[in-house]
Amino acid sequence: MNDLILPLPDDFHVHLRQDEALAGYVSDYAEQFGRGLVMPNTIPPITTPELLLDYKQKILASASRFEPLMTFKLHAAYSRDTLEKMKASGAAAGKYYPAGVTTNSQDGISELESVFPVLEMMEDLGFVLSIHGEEPSAFCLDRESAFIWRVERIAERFPKLKVVFEHLSTAAAVDFVLNAPENVAATITVHHLMLTLDDVIGDGLQPHHFCKPLPKFPADREAVRAAAFSGRSKIFFGSDSAPHPREKKECAPGAAGVYTAPVAIPLLAEIFENAGKLSLLPDFIGGFGADFYGLPRTSESITLVREPWVVPDSYHGAVPLAAGKTLQWKLK
Amino acid sequence: MNDLILPLPDDFHVHLRQDEALAGYVSDYAEQFGRGLVMPNTIPPITTPELLLDYKQKILASASRFEPLMTFKLHAAYSRDTLEKMKASGAAAGKYYPAGVTTNSQDGISELESVFPVLEMMEDLGFVLSIHGEEPSAFCLDRESAFIWRVERIAERFPKLKVVFEHLSTAAAVDFVLNAPENVAATITVHHLMLTLDDVIGDGLQPHHFCKPLPKFPADREAVRAAAFSGRSKIFFGSDSAPHPREKKECAPGAAGVYTAPVAIPLLAEIFENAGKLSLLPDFIGGFGADFYGLPRTSESITLVREPWVVPDSYHGAVPLAAGKTLQWKLK
Repeated sequence: MNDLILPLPDDFHVHLRQDEALAGYVSDYAEQFGRGLVMPNTIPPITTPELLLDYKQKILASASRFEPLMTFKLHAAYSRDTLEKMKASGAAAGKYYPAGVTTNSQDGISELESVFPVLEMMEDLGFVLSIHGEEPSAFCLDRESAFIWRVERIAERFPKLKVVFEHLSTAAAVDFVLNAPENVAATITVHHLMLTLDDVIGDGLQPHHFCKPLPKFPADREAVRAAAFSGRSKIFFGSDSAPHPREKKECAPGAAGVYTAPVAIPLLAEIFENAGKLSLLPDFIGGFGADFYGLPRTSESITLVREPWVVPDSYHGAVPLAAGKTLQWKLK
Repeated sequence: MNDLILPLPDDFHVHLRQDEALAGYVSDYAEQFGRGLVMPNTIPPITTPELLLDYKQKILASASRFEPLMTFKLHAAYSRDTLEKMKASGAAAGKYYPAGVTTNSQDGISELESVFPVLEMMEDLGFVLSIHGEEPSAFCLDRESAFIWRVERIAERFPKLKVVFEHLSTAAAVDFVLNAPENVAATITVHHLMLTLDDVIGDGLQPHHFCKPLPKFPADREAVRAAAFSGRSKIFFGSDSAPHPREKKECAPGAAGVYTAPVAIPLLAEIFENAGKLSLLPDFIGGFGADFYGLPRTSESITLVREPWVVPDSYHGAVPLAAGKTLQWKLK
């Protein structure tokens, strides 16, 4: 087989940046993705319908064919009126950032219960709750597993709220999601399917593989891969593609995030094919996520051709995952 | 107490670099240390008496008061004649690098038994065997514990060979050394007393904390601290101070090694004092190591004064441990 026809991918977790950096990333991104759930950890964060609409329009100005699925940053003080306006402005989800856990999250959530009134309104209004599931006070490798109880408590308390445990990185979180009620889903990134800690700190230090949650032990990666290959409808793709200029990564301290958007679909094709699971890829990138978010499945498609190519060293100044490596599938 | 008089420190593990970089590092180093066990992973590595003597003379040219304790890089092909000449040239130890484990170790040892004939001669000639105890093929966090059986086998097979397990970083290796026969000792660095993985990859990426062996879990650091504070004569200081120019650390891939020499003694004073173990510091830095190596204890001393100072951002282009931090003790 030399052509691979796939649904135009949905990406249920992406960072598109802002200001001068936005246009380049967005136009590249829209060549590969039909929809993307756009993270709200901008400066300032997306916390009002006006900011959300403004950000959406800036994104659309760089990629008209693309449909940005907007998010707002969860905090405890939202009114129902604001949430309704968020909805009307195109918000699909609210994003839960624990305080201090990742890029621009200093103003995140410390007390779980403080957001319960807002979660109740979100449940009622049909919003998805997207969660960066890490407990910042825990040891770095334990942060995801230390957070699980919070997701569990939210899902129990709000059984009709759709909850997404973002970017699974541990066997413990995989196990929790697979056994949780159907209102709990999860996204998986391409880099957590590929990397372990060995790829970050095992040989030389690899700043372009440094991200949160951290890639972890081989057994964790195996669990994440097994989840992606499970065919379960609650497991779908979210790239967490996070471009940083090279000089923000190769420095001290270096920023967290892997820039995967330009290579994600070719890499996924290779990973799923090598595992003998290529038949599960269409649902993973263009089916289950839309279903969970209550969106129509795409009717468009993209074609990959089996044509080896070398990943450039950078796009718009950001070093992509697999830079300099040869990939087997190429976007037509 | 505002003055702290300590024996002039011995450092049983240091990288002094070569060529243009050597002079600056050595002259700074000699202000704090009376003797240092100089690692042989230069380019080319120290593998002949001529190279060893040449390196020793270059070091002495930059610091006449200082006594470099020279090492050669262990390989399987040494003759007794060569080892005798190494001894006559001032070699105190042979250094065991597993192949590929750290800076310039591509030509290290793969088969343990291959070096047994050389170890037998070293035992006979009274050399110390200094070991970088990491198994390169293991997962990054498991490399030290996966190597322990090799040290155990060497120590059993050569009961009169003095063996040093360098830069302890795990509870498993601490436990092994403390319970091993008296021919097995270990060094501890200042950075492994201070850091865990959180300090490398827990918040932003910290390339200046990246080293091998990696700092590990909090329980490992506690075990290393307990060993340093044990008062056991087989546990002594080896800084593994390893200066790299900033641009070799803040890049991809970044080099492994922490530059600690300029701050090691003030930091150790602070760490031992905060633990209520200041009375154990003199033996740790200026007693037990000399005893194990069969050297006379120093009769010289240095004085630290309680005078807060801010660690510079760099020395000779290398970023030191605790750069920008305020330390409580200062060298007089």
